[in-house]
Amino acid sequence: VQPLPLGATIGILGDGQLGRMLSQAAARLGFKVAIFGPDEDSPAAQVSAHCIVADYNDEAALKRFAELCDVISFEFENVPAACLETLIGFGARVAPGPQALKVTQDRILEKGFARAHGIGTVDYAEVSSYDDLEKAIRIIGLPALLKTRREGYDGKGQVWIRHADEARAAFDALGGKPSILEARADFVREVSVIAARGHDGAWVTYPVGENHHVQGILSTTLAPAPGAEVLMPQINQIASTVLEGLEYVGVLGIEFFVLKEGLLLLNEIAPRVHNTGHWTQDGCLCDQFEQHIRCVAGWPLGDTQAFATVEMTNLLGADILAAHRLAAEPHSRLHVYGKSIGPEGPRAGRKLGHINRLRSGYAL
Amino acid sequence: VQPLPLGATIGILGDGQLGRMLSQAAARLGFKVAIFGPDEDSPAAQVSAHCIVADYNDEAALKRFAELCDVISFEFENVPAACLETLIGFGARVAPGPQALKVTQDRILEKGFARAHGIGTVDYAEVSSYDDLEKAIRIIGLPALLKTRREGYDGKGQVWIRHADEARAAFDALGGKPSILEARADFVREVSVIAARGHDGAWVTYPVGENHHVQGILSTTLAPAPGAEVLMPQINQIASTVLEGLEYVGVLGIEFFVLKEGLLLLNEIAPRVHNTGHWTQDGCLCDQFEQHIRCVAGWPLGDTQAFATVEMTNLLGADILAAHRLAAEPHSRLHVYGKSIGPEGPRAGRKLGHINRLRSGYAL
Repeated sequence: VQPLPLGATIGILGDGQLGRMLSQAAARLGFKVAIFGPDEDSPAAQVSAHCIVADYNDEAALKRFAELCDVISFEFENVPAACLETLIGFGARVAPGPQALKVTQDRILEKGFARAHGIGTVDYAEVSSYDDLEKAIRIIGLPALLKTRREGYDGKGQVWIRHADEARAAFDALGGKPSILEARADFVREVSVIAARGHDGAWVTYPVGENHHVQGILSTTLAPAPGAEVLMPQINQIASTVLEGLEYVGVLGIEFFVLKEGLLLLNEIAPRVHNTGHWTQDGCLCDQFEQHIRCVAGWPLGDTQAFATVEMTNLLGADILAAHRLAAEPHSRLHVYGKSIGPEGPRAGRKLGHINRLRSGYAL
Repeated sequence: VQPLPLGATIGILGDGQLGRMLSQAAARLGFKVAIFGPDEDSPAAQVSAHCIVADYNDEAALKRFAELCDVISFEFENVPAACLETLIGFGARVAPGPQALKVTQDRILEKGFARAHGIGTVDYAEVSSYDDLEKAIRIIGLPALLKTRREGYDGKGQVWIRHADEARAAFDALGGKPSILEARADFVREVSVIAARGHDGAWVTYPVGENHHVQGILSTTLAPAPGAEVLMPQINQIASTVLEGLEYVGVLGIEFFVLKEGLLLLNEIAPRVHNTGHWTQDGCLCDQFEQHIRCVAGWPLGDTQAFATVEMTNLLGADILAAHRLAAEPHSRLHVYGKSIGPEGPRAGRKLGHINRLRSGYAL
């Protein structure tokens, strides 16, 4: 693959904050960006040269997008895999490819992929009917987490089952959709890694972040996570296996449970830039967004060394109303997503920005 | 002045790389940006929510711009002061105000302002005719630098006179325009400071940068400049005098000659973000672009502490063709401006990007 020349146009499917930050990184490298998404005046469109406002199954719009862009990527994993196939059919170069999407969009395929490559996961069972669920509970035990196989993020589409008599309500809460029952991991910490792979197979990882979730939504990431250096050999082994197994081109995030013995279970693969990698914007010279652009553009991978320990805190819902006060904090940088806030104020739990606080700097 | 709310629109007159980087910083703080400038698909428009393509004297377009924007600033000092007056007439809030432009657009007024405030400059004389020039040479001596009073940047609109018999050619080279003859400063280094002042009168300076020019164009800035801490009391005194004397709101750059005794002569005031402040993008958490946006938005000023020594190198003309190779350097970050390059290749000396190389990091 020839490296994309300056001034080339990179397309991004999806118009949210990840598309916005990808777009800003692409511009910094001298590319133009075209956003494809459903909303006018979206976070990503506000900072991009071009925007096509359309649904993901609008073939005429996809054709225009394919013609406009030299390479196309995406900012979220729930873009229909068929949409990528359509773009490829129109002659577009797409990275990452549809295969990575197919595997990671389906929690059963994802865990099957991990196990098939010798990567540990929690025990799990497929749930297609209420009978399946009862059987799964007998095998997995309780408490266990029932999740839809597809879609679902930030704690949506999942419900804990603590007692057998909660099974029916849980099944109904997910609308009887194809699901997965996952055993509870007895973990001591949750960590994640941002990994990247270029067209030429070269790959890199960033230092590990430690994550804290509140009500299923990421609240903070601390990175490089104290004491996590010992995990890097395992993490690098898993990350390279995943990247190669998916023939991946671009950045992905992998979330892990760390068991008390120091072993890792893969929790989830996000085939895109990831909220747990936002710390790289102010802890590294090449952040995850620029890294992803480098990968899809066929440019050399960037430096992943951290020059500071960063605590990233998501600004959810009403947190954003403190933006002005947060901006006055020294040793920190505020990132706001440009989402419109209605007259009724910010919706609880909605990701509206984040702040990176530098906790300590290192000599280079 | 009430702080601008998230989602407000900031207007920028001028559509080049400074407008581009201002726009990206404004977006990061949650503002929308409208660019006003003469060119379609300009560096700034590529990354901004709105763009009005028009001449600076197009009153109808300025009216639309005033209506669209909650506050208006500018990215270069050669925007006609009348243009700001027109916008103010249409009810726009403008920062910095027209007074700063008037003083700094005219080298005679600028040096007069400095002297009137007790700030040293090289000796100079006003040149309105060839007779004036001959008289000025007798007073100032040779070599001396003849510059147009207005406009002129990056070594344009200026010519050295080394011998008396070069005077006529120099005068003609500037087209007989109103000019200034400046004595040559016997300096040991050229330094500059980026300073900022908010609506409330609070002001800050960044650490000093040492600059190297090649053929009148900035080539590199090293900041914080080694051994320049001793200059900070003088620099802060001058910067605060300039900011207050101009009732300035926003970021400005001041260039100095350092004499061998350690005294400073003010060379030039740029009432805008400045090329010698590009190092702040990767050496500070609040760079000069975000700082300017904070000032004009009435937000609290940001942290100006450097957490690394940065060498900024401009990528001029064909330098940009090495972008792909430069991107592979560790400890550095590339910034490309998105200017279109014609089939004949990049024009010599044109500013097309810069690279910030981190030379050492500090503990926070």
